[in-house]
Amino acid sequence: MTNRITSVQNAQFKQWRKLHQAKYRKRLQTYLIEGEHLVEEALKHLPEAAFEALIISENYRGELIAEDKVDYIITQSMSDQLSQTPANQGVFAVLKMPLSDSLPQDGTHYLLIDNVQDPGNVGTMIRTADAFNYDAVILGEGSVDIYNDKVLRATQGSIWHLPVLTQNLRDSIKILKHKNIPILATTLNEQAVSYQSLDSFNACAIIMGNEGQGVSSELIKFADQSVYIPMPGQSESLNVAVATGILLSKFVNN
Amino acid sequence: MTNRITSVQNAQFKQWRKLHQAKYRKRLQTYLIEGEHLVEEALKHLPEAAFEALIISENYRGELIAEDKVDYIITQSMSDQLSQTPANQGVFAVLKMPLSDSLPQDGTHYLLIDNVQDPGNVGTMIRTADAFNYDAVILGEGSVDIYNDKVLRATQGSIWHLPVLTQNLRDSIKILKHKNIPILATTLNEQAVSYQSLDSFNACAIIMGNEGQGVSSELIKFADQSVYIPMPGQSESLNVAVATGILLSKFVNN
Repeated sequence: MTNRITSVQNAQFKQWRKLHQAKYRKRLQTYLIEGEHLVEEALKHLPEAAFEALIISENYRGELIAEDKVDYIITQSMSDQLSQTPANQGVFAVLKMPLSDSLPQDGTHYLLIDNVQDPGNVGTMIRTADAFNYDAVILGEGSVDIYNDKVLRATQGSIWHLPVLTQNLRDSIKILKHKNIPILATTLNEQAVSYQSLDSFNACAIIMGNEGQGVSSELIKFADQSVYIPMPGQSESLNVAVATGILLSKFVNN
Repeated sequence: MTNRITSVQNAQFKQWRKLHQAKYRKRLQTYLIEGEHLVEEALKHLPEAAFEALIISENYRGELIAEDKVDYIITQSMSDQLSQTPANQGVFAVLKMPLSDSLPQDGTHYLLIDNVQDPGNVGTMIRTADAFNYDAVILGEGSVDIYNDKVLRATQGSIWHLPVLTQNLRDSIKILKHKNIPILATTLNEQAVSYQSLDSFNACAIIMGNEGQGVSSELIKFADQSVYIPMPGQSESLNVAVATGILLSKFVNN
């Protein structure tokens, strides 16, 4: 059954707009996605029960969603208010949390993200972990909210291809060590070796840190090996998503 | 001599604000940078003649610029109008174009950017080329303006570490071929080989393309070798800056 909403005062619509803010997402345990590609990926990878609402603008002419599956039609101006992108495509979904809450039992390759703040970087790191077939991505508690719209957009849908969870990284590391998974941390300290000097691993967990400060010293202590990426040029550092790509393409999960 | 400007109607101030737009940057042949790190990098790497103005907010307390080198002090609210970042640091410079206009005579490693639109990606690609000691970055005519503030910020100052120029890429390729530099293009066509199967090169030029469409077919024709990055996961593609990092870290200029 499709409902038409025409007033910005509509309670439902007001609630969707609140999902732009992390505190309401947490309270309502839902999150908002938009755009043909992301909604298509969600439809492909999530069970029907994960969808709270499928919403289109009155001007939406795409064929992504069968007419009888559309829950709400909103006006174009409401659609522009709901959108958080410069190129609003007029198609949205409200989805139920959580994405995932436990580590895969039989995983071998893990990406751990320690305190990375930029949503585009975090989303790109998740997309990269997916590309190289990693089994899960774990964000430490200080990192950006995974339900942030810019994170979700930058993942390009990878967020639904592998478990992505938020966890205290010390706890994650304990669990991974218990599974005998070697822990690598990116750093520049004296014990660090060039990533190129290492062979691939049958299993590994790679910790990537905040761009300014790197991996926190507390977590480096738990690492079995510190690695760095040699850079012969003048740049002081790499973008953290680029560094992640270089390491994950080397330690790919084939 | 330091001038104090307190009115947003000041002609000089209005002109600086126009530098947010590409058409005025082109007309005035100047561009605006902001933030301690970027201004510091510019001071370190550019000759004095490249600076048209050094500007601080009345509240700026940093020690980056000697007092007698500050050209203008503006009010905090004007500083907030001039800034294009959420975390305005109250320090700006107006710099003269161009960054660079010719290829280095004795270069061996080149990054060619074909029609990449996202300023963060382009800036990150320049930073990455710097990290791996590339000799120049050439942006094709369809790519984003290199003087765009987001491009400059994402380079983190690398823009002044190596020549970065805008040129018709067919012309660049002709010049590079004349220098016997092998041209690699990233693609998924039938002739493509995995980048991992190649040895490092003493010299090479790598063409990276638009995220959606890849390298234009016209340019692929000129390539000596098409390469791809194997991805065993579900992600359809990599972010273009991440892909650049993977290739440049493999074909590094040592």
